[in-house]
Amino acid sequence: MSQLRWDPLTQNWVIITSSQGRRPGDFILEREQVSMKSCPFCYGQEERTTDELFAVRPDGSQPNSSGWQVRVIPNKYPVLGIEGNLDKRGVGIYDVMNGIGAHEIVVENPDHQRTLAELAPDEIRNVLKAYRARLLDLRRDSRFQTVMVFKNHGLEAGAAIPHSHSQIIALPVLPPRQTAELKTCREYFDRKERCLLCDLLRQELDMKSGVVRDDGNFVVFAPFASRYPFELRITPRRHLHDFALQSDQELLQLAEILKNTLQRLSAVLRDPPYNLVLQTAPPMHERLGRPALWNSLPYDYHWYLEIIPRLTKTAGFERGTGFTMNPTAPEEAAGFLRDADLAAAI
Amino acid sequence: MSQLRWDPLTQNWVIITSSQGRRPGDFILEREQVSMKSCPFCYGQEERTTDELFAVRPDGSQPNSSGWQVRVIPNKYPVLGIEGNLDKRGVGIYDVMNGIGAHEIVVENPDHQRTLAELAPDEIRNVLKAYRARLLDLRRDSRFQTVMVFKNHGLEAGAAIPHSHSQIIALPVLPPRQTAELKTCREYFDRKERCLLCDLLRQELDMKSGVVRDDGNFVVFAPFASRYPFELRITPRRHLHDFALQSDQELLQLAEILKNTLQRLSAVLRDPPYNLVLQTAPPMHERLGRPALWNSLPYDYHWYLEIIPRLTKTAGFERGTGFTMNPTAPEEAAGFLRDADLAAAI
Repeated sequence: MSQLRWDPLTQNWVIITSSQGRRPGDFILEREQVSMKSCPFCYGQEERTTDELFAVRPDGSQPNSSGWQVRVIPNKYPVLGIEGNLDKRGVGIYDVMNGIGAHEIVVENPDHQRTLAELAPDEIRNVLKAYRARLLDLRRDSRFQTVMVFKNHGLEAGAAIPHSHSQIIALPVLPPRQTAELKTCREYFDRKERCLLCDLLRQELDMKSGVVRDDGNFVVFAPFASRYPFELRITPRRHLHDFALQSDQELLQLAEILKNTLQRLSAVLRDPPYNLVLQTAPPMHERLGRPALWNSLPYDYHWYLEIIPRLTKTAGFERGTGFTMNPTAPEEAAGFLRDADLAAAI
Repeated sequence: MSQLRWDPLTQNWVIITSSQGRRPGDFILEREQVSMKSCPFCYGQEERTTDELFAVRPDGSQPNSSGWQVRVIPNKYPVLGIEGNLDKRGVGIYDVMNGIGAHEIVVENPDHQRTLAELAPDEIRNVLKAYRARLLDLRRDSRFQTVMVFKNHGLEAGAAIPHSHSQIIALPVLPPRQTAELKTCREYFDRKERCLLCDLLRQELDMKSGVVRDDGNFVVFAPFASRYPFELRITPRRHLHDFALQSDQELLQLAEILKNTLQRLSAVLRDPPYNLVLQTAPPMHERLGRPALWNSLPYDYHWYLEIIPRLTKTAGFERGTGFTMNPTAPEEAAGFLRDADLAAAI
């Protein structure tokens, strides 16, 4: 079973995934690309995966058979296991708990070749509906403090299996970035009675230079203090803390602007590897010792999708400082993306 | 000129290195390896570099000629420039300052082929002396809040030029990781009147499972809450906040244990790419608005070298959460390294 260990120095939890325990030789092999006989995410391979948790099946087909358009399954090699309890304990100066959580795969479409950018808007909406359904279900488990939805596109971005898919991980602790963002938003709201993320969006709309697209409902922009080149944020114009509260109609608008954004990236950067992460409010159920952080949550937070193309390497400086270095000013990146020829997307 | 921009959401500075401004096409090229006609770090190429800042020249040779054993030069393509002032200002809700700092290269030996692990201990000591000399010099500049020393070994770890070298970057702000560590150590000391890093070291020595080597002066261990597989920390047994206070004799002991450690990694992981970072106390000169953090610094902090082999990819989960996932328990990594056959180092 994997473990979470607390580092008293960095004040962060670390996930030791010893269930995937790797010996030195595994790392040497890992530098070569994995080959696969047949893809477990294609039609006809449903039996090879664990039982599905959610699917869109317009043809009324049976679970775990072909016919689906989107399919969510437990990860066969989860970094956190769903069974058991946390068993929090101390090890001298350190803290440990069992690696309890959930780790799921969203297979975005049956076609092995089609990327998320190539799907039709209503097909992308099905993917977004799968995110919403799994968020709502996993949040009911009071062991979990947050549910992360993310996607790795391309080998350099961490996608080991090429068939287009996203991942969902439910965690028994709030990660450092979410802890920091929620705390910052809370303090901002306490002082100003305004949402920090609304104010950031207003600032970007005023400056215009970073805005890639604004359809009146959702805005895509390259944030003024982007950590990475061509980093983008997609966020609703109206204040809403939780992605899971978006309606079907809104998810279609989001699917359209997401497709358009991914096509622009593909046209300008020739189908770059990228990570996509959904940043949304954590579950609202009460939590030992820290309810205060959540009390004003509907006012504090404002969900967004972030897209980070993997264009630069991180090295000793980034590892050692927590800083990133961004060689492309976001206003320049936004300019290239605004001018993109969508027909050039690959 | 590059810029530092403050993100009010993540509460971090970002470095926009627009002096190296990259257009989309540059990122597409970047995925292939750079070829080089001749190496600017070899003997006879001294004229191609900027004037040297420090060198070890036992033969009494002239600056900027051959004959050196270690040579420190300004980086020809600095991420932060040495000339100018910070000109701190607001841009709406964001903050900006000019990218003022220093960016230097430590060429570790004249031989294009020899890695740091292959140098003799007294040659490695020369590299450590160069670190110490540059730290002491750069700290005199009151524009800098910290000086980072780090090394990227191997292309996957970010080393664009294969000739073995380290880098030094002086920064006008304290990076997020140093801010967090110093704050944590300060709070720990305030409560317990003990150094957190001394206590962490004692805990590791008690547990033994993570210790790779202990020569009585320096200890090498894989920390119990390691973020990365085969992550190692080398730290002096005696409490010392500042690497620059180590004597010549101590630097030779450190050189010996560093060589031994790098050889073990090379033997077990077949010369893996790695990052090495020196974590040491920031300069003590007074600083606007936040002297409190530094008041008890000699008691709070305890310098260490960290070595992070680059064995796993970071993907959407790591980018989106700030968490890492470590597939090798540190006690297992330490076991492999203790059992390493040093003759197998490559």
